[in-house]
Amino acid sequence: MLTGATGFVGRHTLLALARAGHDVRAVARRRGPELAGVTWHESDLLAGCEVVGEVEPEILIHLAWYAEHGKFWSSTENVRWVEASLALLRAFAAAGGERAVIAGTCAEYEPSFEVYPESAPQQPETLYGASKHGLHVIASAFAAEVGLSLAWGRLFFLYGPFEQPERFVPSLVLALLRRERARMTEGTQLRDFLHVADAGAAFAALADSALTGPVNIASGQAIKLRELATLIARYTGSLELLDVGGMPRREGEASSIVADVHRLEGEVGWRPRIALEDGVRDTVTWWRERLATPEHDRL
Amino acid sequence: MLTGATGFVGRHTLLALARAGHDVRAVARRRGPELAGVTWHESDLLAGCEVVGEVEPEILIHLAWYAEHGKFWSSTENVRWVEASLALLRAFAAAGGERAVIAGTCAEYEPSFEVYPESAPQQPETLYGASKHGLHVIASAFAAEVGLSLAWGRLFFLYGPFEQPERFVPSLVLALLRRERARMTEGTQLRDFLHVADAGAAFAALADSALTGPVNIASGQAIKLRELATLIARYTGSLELLDVGGMPRREGEASSIVADVHRLEGEVGWRPRIALEDGVRDTVTWWRERLATPEHDRL
Repeated sequence: MLTGATGFVGRHTLLALARAGHDVRAVARRRGPELAGVTWHESDLLAGCEVVGEVEPEILIHLAWYAEHGKFWSSTENVRWVEASLALLRAFAAAGGERAVIAGTCAEYEPSFEVYPESAPQQPETLYGASKHGLHVIASAFAAEVGLSLAWGRLFFLYGPFEQPERFVPSLVLALLRRERARMTEGTQLRDFLHVADAGAAFAALADSALTGPVNIASGQAIKLRELATLIARYTGSLELLDVGGMPRREGEASSIVADVHRLEGEVGWRPRIALEDGVRDTVTWWRERLATPEHDRL
Repeated sequence: MLTGATGFVGRHTLLALARAGHDVRAVARRRGPELAGVTWHESDLLAGCEVVGEVEPEILIHLAWYAEHGKFWSSTENVRWVEASLALLRAFAAAGGERAVIAGTCAEYEPSFEVYPESAPQQPETLYGASKHGLHVIASAFAAEVGLSLAWGRLFFLYGPFEQPERFVPSLVLALLRRERARMTEGTQLRDFLHVADAGAAFAALADSALTGPVNIASGQAIKLRELATLIARYTGSLELLDVGGMPRREGEASSIVADVHRLEGEVGWRPRIALEDGVRDTVTWWRERLATPEHDRL
């Protein structure tokens, strides 16, 4: 059972699970596209998780959460999702579930490291990070008590098709494709970017592995935001419109947020397949085609 | 509004609040005794918290939790109480609430210190401790986000009337009053014991203070379990029946769990009023009278 199956990461996790031959039960408020091996269950987990008792899944991958750009860091919806996630996990265990994989975030970590191993101190600065961290603490103790295998996949920075247009990568892509000036900070911040299709594949691999506890889901590669922006500008053909340093950096912004991926590589045995250059080029192409497609014809 | 108002600590918090002249709304599954200044609201918070919208309290003291002896450390009911507590806090903020005080526990701390300041590392070893710790992380971030004043009162060891008879103090008292042999470990463990009436008064004082964040609610005094047991045995008049060392110590049991009470004394301005000798003597008297009272006449 996969929750958030129509979401940014979820739709790719769904593809990876179906491709691996699993009998997948996809949960979302509104069903997504038909796929071989996938059964859709329309369900709002904030209203209840009866769907778990109906399906009785062996494995749960729980990605559903509130994710609206610009709001998700501080929205009280985070607290509702903690409540819903705990109720979901209890229902899953009660229905005989064996293994759960839940999406965590690098925002759980105390922002003082450069490269974060899973053991780095957790001192979130946002309600989003605190909600995920608190959920992890409680879910881990619950899983240990009831004998559930639990893995906690901490996502870092993602990019790719269907990303919310206001976020860093799509906002640059869209401005440059529209031949508008694209302002950004001086861009020396180091970040760890993973293509969302790889993130989906990693969650599918994690579910099939025996790893328990937290694991970073990331590339392990540091890239400066200005380098990423330059790649984007190159593929849009509008390098001259990129205004590096045209925006002040946010106060207290971490200079480096990069994952240590030893657990992911060594224990799950998974590595990214999409090189950043290829992923960025494909993402630019995806947005270019989308801009050329009338709204009512879009997927 | 006080939740858990008929509980071990809650009944004393209720008395202290009523005595201080507050207009108290007491929430419990079944109403408790009539008291001047107290209005009872029968409500099961695990089934919903509509009562908050009806009452619209300014101050919330949330003590309700699952507390059954021998089970509460590992029961999955802890997770349900996290969910209910978060829903309660959201409802309280939505109804215009200003200040919330929630009961935490010394079981949130990593058991490696001797005297615990509030800043000691939190690494709970039980589902109970993890649930309270996770709730604290999330509730603190939520309160900061919505502008709610939040204090978190960490209880250490309590004793006094109405304690569950299977717990350390009452089990010794009852065995000795019944003239049975009372076995215990060698009893060199240092613990911090507070009379439950003092704990109730401390929560009332905390609610009336402006302190935010975690605060230990404890005596700050270390006593060896064997010394406490000897006090009990003296007041029951059965010192010869106390078998110190007749039981093995639990594997991994902490040698010292004592609170640093600088915040409680300095910032809340509160100190215990009941000396241990007096509290233990009164507790023995209370149990003696209870044993002499027919069951159907008991409060």
